[in-house]
Amino acid sequence: MSRDDGGVDDDPPMKWNGWGDPEKARDLPLAVRTLLPLLLGRIRRPEPAVELDAVHISASALSAEDRAAFRAAVGAQHVDESAEARIRHAGGRSTPDLLRRRLVEQDVPDAVILPADHDEVRACLAVAVERGIAMIPHGGGTSVVGALDPERGSHHAVVSLDLRRLSGLIRLDERSGEAVLAAGTTGPDAEASLAAHGLELGHYPQSFRYATIGGFAAARSSGQNSAGHGRFDTMVTGIRVATPTGDIELGRSPGTAAGPDLIKVFLGSEGIFGVITEVRVRVHPVPHGRVLESWSFPDFAAGAEGLRLVAQQGGGPTVIRLSDEAETAVSLAQVGRIGKALAKGASVVTVYEGDDIAQRRARISALLAEAGGTSEGEGAAEEWLKGRFDGPYLRDALLDAGVFCETLETATTWSNLQALRSAVDSALKAGFADSGARSYVMCHVSHVYPTGASLYFTVLAGVRSDPLAVWEPVKSRVNDAIIATGGTISHHHAVGRDHAAWLAQEIGDTGIRILAAIKRELDPTGILNPGAVIPIERTH
Amino acid sequence: MSRDDGGVDDDPPMKWNGWGDPEKARDLPLAVRTLLPLLLGRIRRPEPAVELDAVHISASALSAEDRAAFRAAVGAQHVDESAEARIRHAGGRSTPDLLRRRLVEQDVPDAVILPADHDEVRACLAVAVERGIAMIPHGGGTSVVGALDPERGSHHAVVSLDLRRLSGLIRLDERSGEAVLAAGTTGPDAEASLAAHGLELGHYPQSFRYATIGGFAAARSSGQNSAGHGRFDTMVTGIRVATPTGDIELGRSPGTAAGPDLIKVFLGSEGIFGVITEVRVRVHPVPHGRVLESWSFPDFAAGAEGLRLVAQQGGGPTVIRLSDEAETAVSLAQVGRIGKALAKGASVVTVYEGDDIAQRRARISALLAEAGGTSEGEGAAEEWLKGRFDGPYLRDALLDAGVFCETLETATTWSNLQALRSAVDSALKAGFADSGARSYVMCHVSHVYPTGASLYFTVLAGVRSDPLAVWEPVKSRVNDAIIATGGTISHHHAVGRDHAAWLAQEIGDTGIRILAAIKRELDPTGILNPGAVIPIERTH
Repeated sequence: MSRDDGGVDDDPPMKWNGWGDPEKARDLPLAVRTLLPLLLGRIRRPEPAVELDAVHISASALSAEDRAAFRAAVGAQHVDESAEARIRHAGGRSTPDLLRRRLVEQDVPDAVILPADHDEVRACLAVAVERGIAMIPHGGGTSVVGALDPERGSHHAVVSLDLRRLSGLIRLDERSGEAVLAAGTTGPDAEASLAAHGLELGHYPQSFRYATIGGFAAARSSGQNSAGHGRFDTMVTGIRVATPTGDIELGRSPGTAAGPDLIKVFLGSEGIFGVITEVRVRVHPVPHGRVLESWSFPDFAAGAEGLRLVAQQGGGPTVIRLSDEAETAVSLAQVGRIGKALAKGASVVTVYEGDDIAQRRARISALLAEAGGTSEGEGAAEEWLKGRFDGPYLRDALLDAGVFCETLETATTWSNLQALRSAVDSALKAGFADSGARSYVMCHVSHVYPTGASLYFTVLAGVRSDPLAVWEPVKSRVNDAIIATGGTISHHHAVGRDHAAWLAQEIGDTGIRILAAIKRELDPTGILNPGAVIPIERTH
Repeated sequence: MSRDDGGVDDDPPMKWNGWGDPEKARDLPLAVRTLLPLLLGRIRRPEPAVELDAVHISASALSAEDRAAFRAAVGAQHVDESAEARIRHAGGRSTPDLLRRRLVEQDVPDAVILPADHDEVRACLAVAVERGIAMIPHGGGTSVVGALDPERGSHHAVVSLDLRRLSGLIRLDERSGEAVLAAGTTGPDAEASLAAHGLELGHYPQSFRYATIGGFAAARSSGQNSAGHGRFDTMVTGIRVATPTGDIELGRSPGTAAGPDLIKVFLGSEGIFGVITEVRVRVHPVPHGRVLESWSFPDFAAGAEGLRLVAQQGGGPTVIRLSDEAETAVSLAQVGRIGKALAKGASVVTVYEGDDIAQRRARISALLAEAGGTSEGEGAAEEWLKGRFDGPYLRDALLDAGVFCETLETATTWSNLQALRSAVDSALKAGFADSGARSYVMCHVSHVYPTGASLYFTVLAGVRSDPLAVWEPVKSRVNDAIIATGGTISHHHAVGRDHAAWLAQEIGDTGIRILAAIKRELDPTGILNPGAVIPIERTH
């Protein structure tokens, strides 16, 4: 079922130069406006952002033959060379992406191609190989690591392959608890199609409202319910991929020792090996009950100890997250309420879903209390639940107000958690200080594992000069600190182009050689997403 | 810590031509001897097996220079060209392996090399590359899929790289619940070293007493406690590998989106890409309590439905397994008691370990009762627990008595379970019938997942002619049936050489191309385990 065939689509198109539904865009709340000068000093309001029709772009580099070949593959109406379509596919939603969308001169793909199904994806790949055109697979467009940059590599043109028409529930096996979803299905569409059968996927990253099933797989996404339902990786039981040199369909059995698990080669591949067209996922009945509970801890260290006990015992809540002192104080997650009451210590949000909540909650509460936590009732947890997808709207308002705001994330073992948090915090603060900017750094843990946890940082900075130029060395310094302190270069945002240099340090030269060998085998002319994950020069 | 440096080794060497501790070898129990003619007709006792010193082998093909180079790498006393060492490394422990060990003419490796550590493994690889010698990595020697065949490919000699000296606990991070174990550490040695810290790995495959940590990783092993602690795959958080063209160390963080998970490239690689030298695993406190409970169901279908409910709800027992009517009737798992009481229906064994057993058991019992199960107390479960590592001893006694006995396994989704069981059962019976042999086929489910389960078959047959010749087409027919019916070619025995032809059907040509590309990159001269996992001709 493609959207053209009657698929439901309730989500308005993403704002072209910011996050989400343009109707939901908002001014900076009064409380935030009051607090910012205290944290960051006086902020200069920037020039207003450029309007869509004032953006300068190059003429499409597609030749008449290129155009005709793509039109033959997907139909003329699905080859879009309009300025708006090309600008809308010029990048993802990192802060640098949004800053670039505010400029008059923009680098954009030469066309947007919209195939209807797997076979049309294959046909598009054949055209790209035949005619030497780079191709950037595009799901919901929510990448924050530069995976959607219109990089043409050594090719004469680059197109965005927008997968939105590959949408919907393709097959459902209720007995086995498995659903096959088309790669371009958005989070809400996936959940709506499953809810009709009383089922849930349960994957709720912050990008949920726009990101797609194929994108979750390609980027190794992790959602807010990961404590209960796992990372997206662990939900995937099968995958169908069209590569430039052949199709592959993997995952016939839930437990197998039939050679290395090649599904894992495509999870995290960000479109460099092939285009994911279908994903088979584990689904479960929609949970009945839901109980929210907030906790406060004297400090981050005590809270982290509580989360460790919970993660190592297992059978915990569906959601568990810990905000450090800085994040707890300004409660950034509570859009519109920032600064209302400057909380002390470190706060924890827990959400329980399912049947046996009382038993689980009693067990988990004992562990959190043992670590020094105090139950605070539903309050903060309810606020978090309400605003959990809204953080990016606040970022747009901050950027409008001239405040630099970006997020980044990593993960490590429990024993290394404090050292890594401290190293990243220092790198961010020192990096901005070097450019003369005051910054405010917040951190939370939102994904826990028996052996370690994620660390998610939000930084606000009062940047006075070109924010893109200021941020680049800070980001580089942070990535160096992450690698030096034993963290991973990304917990759930993936690699894209922004992290590619550090991936080589994380997996070593032999690791890069493995990825490059797979790339050369499946995509020998290097048309797919050049420069993402591994540097272009490693793939020849 | 290597065994030479004081590591504990309580396990006597494996019987050279059978399973396990020679002291534990046993005659066929009276009850079995009584039952066999009823099931299989009259059995002719075979010629006695050959004695070790009567086996004919070729002279070692190592040249004086080859020998000198390996001696320089590991020390002269660790290059073993004795007939006994070579014969002991001639294969694994499949029934065809054991039948070949009963022959006078045997194909064996030219030497056994025993490196002490990672660096010596690297040195051995360099010698093998430099001198064009094939190398078969050897852990516990328990492969049942031909992964240890002394295949030299296009090389002039083949050596077995025995990793037993890479043994012991290398690092322990108690806070994070992670242990780094040397690849040659056996199951009992790993558990003993962890138990000293109050910790457990919890991986108990039937090969536990002899198999090694590196072998578990290389073959994607799954143990009897998989319902509680997962497959070995899921326990691995890091890996160190020496390849012919460079080292790789992976897994710095428990949750990561830093590109594809390359650990998974090595899990299931059976030594074709490199030699695993260290494995980091998740460990947990030794569980306190243990409760056993057996259940009976009217038939296999009802029992499978019970297991499905348990697996899909989650938080179940540590062990759960279901024997079909044929296995329940003869209770083969109860060595020595076979046929004592021919039970009816299908039996389920559950084992609960840990803290909150009462709650979990109440929840699971309700599900099993809902599916038509009746609790039968501890009895059968206790018998299973006692004899759970002893099945292979019984096979030796059966082979001595002239009864062909082999096992094989697969897995599929819950909705396809009955169809797959029926297809394999038919293929086994029809295959033996074609050769004029009566057979008895038993099946159990021993590993459950939310989306499906394993199927493990044991077949007994009264084969009158050369059992190796009779078995080959039967096994081939079964593998065809597995692929045609949507099963995986292996749930936990891996691919080796015996399943390589069917792996290509399971993962397709593009899948094989990916594996071959990695192989060519890491092992360009193809010295490592030629012909395992992928056919030799695909790796040039």
